[in-house]
Amino acid sequence: MKISIIGVGLIGGSMALKLKAKGFASHIYGVDQNENHLHEAKKLGIIDEIASLEKAVKNSDLIIIAIPVDAAKKLLPEVLDLVTQQQTVMDAGSTKSGIVNSVTNHVNRNRFVAFHPMWGTENSGPQNALSESFSGRAAVICDREHSAQDALKTVENTAENLDMHLIYMSAEDHDIHTAYISHISHITSYALANTVLEKEREEDTIFQLASTGFSSTVRLAQSHPEMWVPIFKQNKENVLDVLNEHISQLRKFKSALEKENYDLLEDLIRNANKIRGILDK
Amino acid sequence: MKISIIGVGLIGGSMALKLKAKGFASHIYGVDQNENHLHEAKKLGIIDEIASLEKAVKNSDLIIIAIPVDAAKKLLPEVLDLVTQQQTVMDAGSTKSGIVNSVTNHVNRNRFVAFHPMWGTENSGPQNALSESFSGRAAVICDREHSAQDALKTVENTAENLDMHLIYMSAEDHDIHTAYISHISHITSYALANTVLEKEREEDTIFQLASTGFSSTVRLAQSHPEMWVPIFKQNKENVLDVLNEHISQLRKFKSALEKENYDLLEDLIRNANKIRGILDK
Repeated sequence: MKISIIGVGLIGGSMALKLKAKGFASHIYGVDQNENHLHEAKKLGIIDEIASLEKAVKNSDLIIIAIPVDAAKKLLPEVLDLVTQQQTVMDAGSTKSGIVNSVTNHVNRNRFVAFHPMWGTENSGPQNALSESFSGRAAVICDREHSAQDALKTVENTAENLDMHLIYMSAEDHDIHTAYISHISHITSYALANTVLEKEREEDTIFQLASTGFSSTVRLAQSHPEMWVPIFKQNKENVLDVLNEHISQLRKFKSALEKENYDLLEDLIRNANKIRGILDK
Repeated sequence: MKISIIGVGLIGGSMALKLKAKGFASHIYGVDQNENHLHEAKKLGIIDEIASLEKAVKNSDLIIIAIPVDAAKKLLPEVLDLVTQQQTVMDAGSTKSGIVNSVTNHVNRNRFVAFHPMWGTENSGPQNALSESFSGRAAVICDREHSAQDALKTVENTAENLDMHLIYMSAEDHDIHTAYISHISHITSYALANTVLEKEREEDTIFQLASTGFSSTVRLAQSHPEMWVPIFKQNKENVLDVLNEHISQLRKFKSALEKENYDLLEDLIRNANKIRGILDK
């Protein structure tokens, strides 16, 4: 299968590596606004050929859009303008309502499958791409009833070749769930980094004392705004709901401490401990 | 050197394994209120002998107290009552002002060295102890001027045998810094777990969608209240300061989103990204 990867960064690059390794991709066209990324991806064997958007789309069975969600929302209608009823287009974005709504009335809407692989790191760029990044993880397909059966099947095969297991839901539900289990983690982590940077002016002390727990909690704070501002923007209402809930949960800890109510503090912690059973499943 | 480990859990157990492996400990007495932990530690070769507090302290050159900080604060004066000017006592607690203040006027204060190895996980118990847990990490010694030179030397040798590098500071400074780079991470993580548990009643959805980012951020939420309530209690003022700052940082994200001020949102994220330079050092 000939595949276009639009956005040869961490996500697109990791997909390309795996789909090639599996023999699912016979030829990969790379499209990116970032020339350095394109040449790096070519050098690393992530893509076979650097191509224009038009050439890549024209010659591909499958077009994978793996760029920031604001750019993806803008680009998808243009890509759908170019495809025939024999081609399939999928994305890889962390928000789904925005992109599906951008093509609701497009004549080729049925060629698009809304896809979200549940994996990412605080790093970006093709140099961080790994063929096994997605193995064993979940991927979400949204609003499958709006995709043609054969397009859906192509994306399901792609997910299988990425060694991912699929979950189906509406774009709306997806955006609520990801606000809770992904987007809020990033805001928390950013705010924690800012808290520490604000007060701990002596950088050496942070560096020397920073324990494994701290590193784990602020790891996501290294994630780039180019990717995350558009996500927060597209999922604003859900993220605000969760952020309000999170602030109110933090206030409970504050109140328990201020009132020296250590029984309440213990209850709050015991409740949080229940996450262990869920993470371990 | 004969060593008593009081509290044969994750921290005490990991120290024992390493100090034996290095040949620094010739015989290890284990003392614990938890009979199961004692027998487990004996079975795992973490300790050589189960002993009463009195017998263990009497026969040891070095006594390591590795129990929750409230219990340690209570036990330390009793241990100092039992030691001679030839013995050394150290702790491993995450707060330092409480324990040093508990023995300010003790006749054997000079035999105590306040110690904090900057490592831990969300797990506990001797079954999770690993000999290499501390390797390459920082350890803090507080208020060294209140310890006898030979006691200080013994603890410095111990840290060296744990392959840790030492940082010296006052107990007061320690408690401010750890509020920022450890204690707040735990509160954030607990509150995040509670936020998700509150709203995501469908546990299967959390499990299936939970990405690596989420797991990383809530990892610490699995930490037990037996250890953490006493830490928050002893470091209440500092933790409240940081918690207030953290809530105010989260409010900035909230305000940027509510006002759709995406330039501010980007600035907040770019500032948080600076943590990369510090974590990478």
